[in-house]
Amino acid sequence: MKNIAVLGSTGSIGKNTLEVVRNLNRNSFPVSVKYISANSNSELLAAQIEEFKPEAAVIFDPESFNRLKNRSLNHKCEILCGQAGINEIARRDDFELVVNALVGFSGLIPTIEAIKNGKDIALANKESLVVAGELIYSMLAASNSHLLPVDSEHSAILQCVQGEPLKKITKLILTASGGPFRELPAGDMINVTVADALNHPNWKMGNKITIDSATLMNKGFEIIEAKWLFSIEAENIEVLIHPQSIIHSMVEFSDGSVKAQLGVPDMKVPIQYAITYPGRIESDFPRIDFKSLKKLTFEEPDLEKFECLKLAYDVINSGGSYPIVLNGANEAAVDLFLNGKIKFTDIPALIKSAMDKHQNHTKPTLESIVEIDSWSRKYVKETALQEV
Amino acid sequence: MKNIAVLGSTGSIGKNTLEVVRNLNRNSFPVSVKYISANSNSELLAAQIEEFKPEAAVIFDPESFNRLKNRSLNHKCEILCGQAGINEIARRDDFELVVNALVGFSGLIPTIEAIKNGKDIALANKESLVVAGELIYSMLAASNSHLLPVDSEHSAILQCVQGEPLKKITKLILTASGGPFRELPAGDMINVTVADALNHPNWKMGNKITIDSATLMNKGFEIIEAKWLFSIEAENIEVLIHPQSIIHSMVEFSDGSVKAQLGVPDMKVPIQYAITYPGRIESDFPRIDFKSLKKLTFEEPDLEKFECLKLAYDVINSGGSYPIVLNGANEAAVDLFLNGKIKFTDIPALIKSAMDKHQNHTKPTLESIVEIDSWSRKYVKETALQEV
Repeated sequence: MKNIAVLGSTGSIGKNTLEVVRNLNRNSFPVSVKYISANSNSELLAAQIEEFKPEAAVIFDPESFNRLKNRSLNHKCEILCGQAGINEIARRDDFELVVNALVGFSGLIPTIEAIKNGKDIALANKESLVVAGELIYSMLAASNSHLLPVDSEHSAILQCVQGEPLKKITKLILTASGGPFRELPAGDMINVTVADALNHPNWKMGNKITIDSATLMNKGFEIIEAKWLFSIEAENIEVLIHPQSIIHSMVEFSDGSVKAQLGVPDMKVPIQYAITYPGRIESDFPRIDFKSLKKLTFEEPDLEKFECLKLAYDVINSGGSYPIVLNGANEAAVDLFLNGKIKFTDIPALIKSAMDKHQNHTKPTLESIVEIDSWSRKYVKETALQEV
Repeated sequence: MKNIAVLGSTGSIGKNTLEVVRNLNRNSFPVSVKYISANSNSELLAAQIEEFKPEAAVIFDPESFNRLKNRSLNHKCEILCGQAGINEIARRDDFELVVNALVGFSGLIPTIEAIKNGKDIALANKESLVVAGELIYSMLAASNSHLLPVDSEHSAILQCVQGEPLKKITKLILTASGGPFRELPAGDMINVTVADALNHPNWKMGNKITIDSATLMNKGFEIIEAKWLFSIEAENIEVLIHPQSIIHSMVEFSDGSVKAQLGVPDMKVPIQYAITYPGRIESDFPRIDFKSLKKLTFEEPDLEKFECLKLAYDVINSGGSYPIVLNGANEAAVDLFLNGKIKFTDIPALIKSAMDKHQNHTKPTLESIVEIDSWSRKYVKETALQEV
């Protein structure tokens, strides 16, 4: 029996995780969902409580907490609220793995708490590694925790390096769909609407990551994430546009051989792999039909048009605290864009402005990470306000 | 130091093997070529003797043997002749690995001898497994020998299953370029010339395998080979036409994940992998440039047009001694075609005729394998002669 906690259970990754749990329980790999957490969707969280019967459920939004508290549920469990609730369950010792499917910077503290408490982490929250990769890996080195990627790209790489000597990896090739604006002329990027940007060609995901996929910032974050997960220098991590999203990523070895992992664009396979790793369990998840697939294509990414990807590469070279600014400024700018306050092309402009203003810190502590994150958001909001 | 014997050192795989040996010796993986053998190219064999300084060299053709004997070589080594020479070196105990790059049925006895003598085998001679897969695997089970595939497809599969639970493999997907007649209308196959058939779009190989690639019999043999190498039922082995020959083959696992191995069409990577397995050694062999690659395409094979592939599938279902007939009849028919005696479309017709005439034997012994092979060749030659 594998006992897990699912943080962000009502989001896209969370719902897919529970779908994976159903599949595993059908296929002789029993999984018990001991804890779940959601931001505010009390309706869905209540249904999940009834089905998965956790020990406790955490809800972040105080109003939703009250709604959930007042519901009569057949399954009686503790209902906790906010960060205090997360901290409370993090200390429990009746589960081994946390699926961290929280969105953005809010995923960091639960990652840190999981490591402190010796839990394994199936990490969908890439921002944890973007802002605190160095800190997290120094903590992991001194703990029993293991970090397993849930991103399809990093799961692909993990699958490709199984049984291979890690020091023989010469290149990671992260594939990217290119998002909805791959073919849009650079000059038209300024007119992109929220609806356009939320219309991803291949993947159904939450709003924040869908915008990050449209700007290619998501791919920039993934380079940083890959650097930490696989101890690879960023100069050996290449981004390749592959519009069909069938090859999820590739690894080149020192002899010239390349291995790839492929699948339909569906998060259930990488989520399940993180839970069953290094084993594999039967599933009826959708398969690739190569005969109807016809072709896979590849292109070079356009770093001039997708400035966010260029900014991510810059940040990796500078290191230190710059990734915190990249992430914090991006979260604030994406939020402003989603709320109709700024143009699509203002996202990279605001991030760049925050980065220009920032003085680098080496080896930031958790305290300074939180501080720099707050400063970046505040800076972006204020700058955007002044410019409007 | 790894000590090896290279059988068929002057052929395409043999020359590539020696190129790999040069690379390994440059990259701190010392390999000593203790024995080499060739069919008749005494000129090239003499040069190889001078460079690699083996203990002995075997040449099959008696005339070439005399020519080689009479040359004055700076490196003095034993010069042996024919099958007796091969048998002689097979018994020596100063090497661990045999690269079997012999062509056709002639590769079988050296494979058997290597297993008897506890040597590992890097097997480029797929016919060994086609005609005697059952016998070879029963011998391997009782020996210390390991069989490592050199075919790019099977090397790809071996690379993809590293670190994976073998019983979680649900499908092997063997890719095939489709050969030079992929787009030729079925009705025009009858007019194919020897020059047309030898003009392979992606791979430079010896004549026999190039014709097998044009008929797709090569892919049929590879299904049989894969079945033995990976203990997979033939119904779980799929052939997929992939004209660019970049994806060398793929494996689907029970969770729906697919892994692929990719590379430029060059035999040096799979040969080197068989020698360094499970490790990898640096090389400057050509790399894929994904940015200039543009696209990879896939099609279903046409079993009506490529009757040899259909015949191979039939044979796998019948099992027993049918694969011996498939191989023997094919070798004889390809020989007749290369010598201008029959049409391209006569190749499958003659094989089918031999198969129809054959009475199946279960669990054939080495003696009956040799007998059925001879009968098949004789039958094809006589039938072709009668028809002309």
